[in-house]
Amino acid sequence: MANRVQLLQKALEKSKMEGYLVSNENAILYFAGFFGGYRLLIPASGEAVLYVYSVNYEAAKEIAKNCTVELLKRGEDADKRLAGMARKLKLRSIGFDSLEFSAHNKLQKALKRIGLRSASQMVWDLRRVKDASEITCIRRAAELTDVAAKTAAEALKPGIREHELAAEVEYAMRARGSEGTAFDTIVASGPRSAFCHGGCTSRKIQRGELIQFDVGARYCHYAADLTRTFVIGKPTPKQRRMYEIVQQAQEMAFQEIRNGVKARQVDAAARKLIEKNGFGENFPHGLGHGVGLDVHEQPTLNTVSKDILATGNVVTDEPGIYVIGYGGIRIEDTVVVKKEGAERLTKAPYNLEV
Amino acid sequence: MANRVQLLQKALEKSKMEGYLVSNENAILYFAGFFGGYRLLIPASGEAVLYVYSVNYEAAKEIAKNCTVELLKRGEDADKRLAGMARKLKLRSIGFDSLEFSAHNKLQKALKRIGLRSASQMVWDLRRVKDASEITCIRRAAELTDVAAKTAAEALKPGIREHELAAEVEYAMRARGSEGTAFDTIVASGPRSAFCHGGCTSRKIQRGELIQFDVGARYCHYAADLTRTFVIGKPTPKQRRMYEIVQQAQEMAFQEIRNGVKARQVDAAARKLIEKNGFGENFPHGLGHGVGLDVHEQPTLNTVSKDILATGNVVTDEPGIYVIGYGGIRIEDTVVVKKEGAERLTKAPYNLEV
Repeated sequence: MANRVQLLQKALEKSKMEGYLVSNENAILYFAGFFGGYRLLIPASGEAVLYVYSVNYEAAKEIAKNCTVELLKRGEDADKRLAGMARKLKLRSIGFDSLEFSAHNKLQKALKRIGLRSASQMVWDLRRVKDASEITCIRRAAELTDVAAKTAAEALKPGIREHELAAEVEYAMRARGSEGTAFDTIVASGPRSAFCHGGCTSRKIQRGELIQFDVGARYCHYAADLTRTFVIGKPTPKQRRMYEIVQQAQEMAFQEIRNGVKARQVDAAARKLIEKNGFGENFPHGLGHGVGLDVHEQPTLNTVSKDILATGNVVTDEPGIYVIGYGGIRIEDTVVVKKEGAERLTKAPYNLEV
Repeated sequence: MANRVQLLQKALEKSKMEGYLVSNENAILYFAGFFGGYRLLIPASGEAVLYVYSVNYEAAKEIAKNCTVELLKRGEDADKRLAGMARKLKLRSIGFDSLEFSAHNKLQKALKRIGLRSASQMVWDLRRVKDASEITCIRRAAELTDVAAKTAAEALKPGIREHELAAEVEYAMRARGSEGTAFDTIVASGPRSAFCHGGCTSRKIQRGELIQFDVGARYCHYAADLTRTFVIGKPTPKQRRMYEIVQQAQEMAFQEIRNGVKARQVDAAARKLIEKNGFGENFPHGLGHGVGLDVHEQPTLNTVSKDILATGNVVTDEPGIYVIGYGGIRIEDTVVVKKEGAERLTKAPYNLEV
């Protein structure tokens, strides 16, 4: 089986570029299996070269794969090194994933007549389709995230502070092998739950309030992403009704997810139900996003997305209803797209009442 | 007292630019007090405008300060909105902090004859000098980080896994109000401690091994950064000797830190001592870095830095000795630069033996 560097080389062969420069740290990790490289230069044929500063050099030599590792000395002009290698490899045109404007210009100057082309999609075309080993990692991250949801439901008591709940759930994941969190945990209670991304404060959580709980573990660098909404004690009829609409909308969208479906159509399935129930204005975000080494990556599921879902995509399904001054409800799972349908990787129960 | 937007406007007055576009999320937070904005446009005179997507709009309206908040609709061309506002404000030249190459080109196209200039240092000149409120936040982050160091010393027992120790210390910080961690906690034991950034695995820690422990809390978005090195049980004479050299080097550097000193000179104070003891080749990284909303920011303390330290800078002092195949030792504190000398904000004891 071709390794990921070879897969990019295959894509390069079909392009007008003879090489590719990877700068994004997670993209370097994707190709070279090492986090902490500075630049990875992949020629269309021959061996890739990973450039690493001294602080990470010894670790890179031990861990990095699919490439040779070269040391960048402190104070050395990395662009000159790269340009020298590009000339040696006789590259005439090099694609790149992401470069800050000034960094691009400095590198282009060093490259002289060798062209630099923005070509980030070439990497994303690979990264957005997860292979079996990646799905195994995300599956484990999702299991650890389910532990967090279970822990939250058990730890929620009137008077607990939002950050205290975060401490409990993050501990539960971490002690079982999660590499920290995939993103800042959200525990947004009461009126704060009406913010889509309300963060986490020292506010004391009260009985009867809506609690938006959004958390993700990381495993082998891969993220998972889950949201549950809780109420301590008996929910009101209004809370129950809003919850049921969101849960139904999440299920409607889930039923749409399969290889070949338009991402926009999946968003529409959830949105239509929420609109029909009079909450169209209260669902201000897209239905979901890809999940992988980045917690937000391709493909995108919203009303303007042009993405088509494909087998091996891992995406979130997370509709919500937010009423400013009252509170908000979101239900989110991480889902893997299959040839026929899809599978939820996060499986925590949908219990509003705790 | 001028707010931070007004401070940037003062700097703009002295420049040839009539406006500034902030894109970096932490820089937007610095000026507008809100994390989650997309772009902040600051004209040289008049009110700043924060552009926010719908997912964060309601929160921004409640929290953001020093600016008006405008909604970006999904699918809307944000560059056109910005260009329209720039024309309305009659800006002819706009500085920016950081834009990816393609994003820059797209925006420049929308701006037509209005010039875009890379001017990141203008923001860093402000951010690198912390005001009293920022130092209060970093001081609290440092206190929480000290709790982590104390917790680690207590929790270290033969057989505990690296990620289990991370779970304990992160819980201790989080339960007391830390906003997660400022960076991925490092617990690198045994031979792994010889990597400067060894991360954290499921490896079981053994008696007698070197344990590199690098952790940071976050408080009100501000980071702290601390490293201690531990041995469970009685250290060997070689471990003790290496530790004493690193500790002395850290103190030598600390004694150099004051308003007006060259950052390179502070690095040299530690490096000279380590070299004199025959470990020059084993100190492969710079002495330190600035700490603030970013855990690695200006100023930089290494052999090639051109920075001059100034009152209000917050920096790390973190020499190390790393012997591949054997182990490594690093001691790091977060330090605030004062007019006369400096003050350590992290104050955990330097005990090798636990």
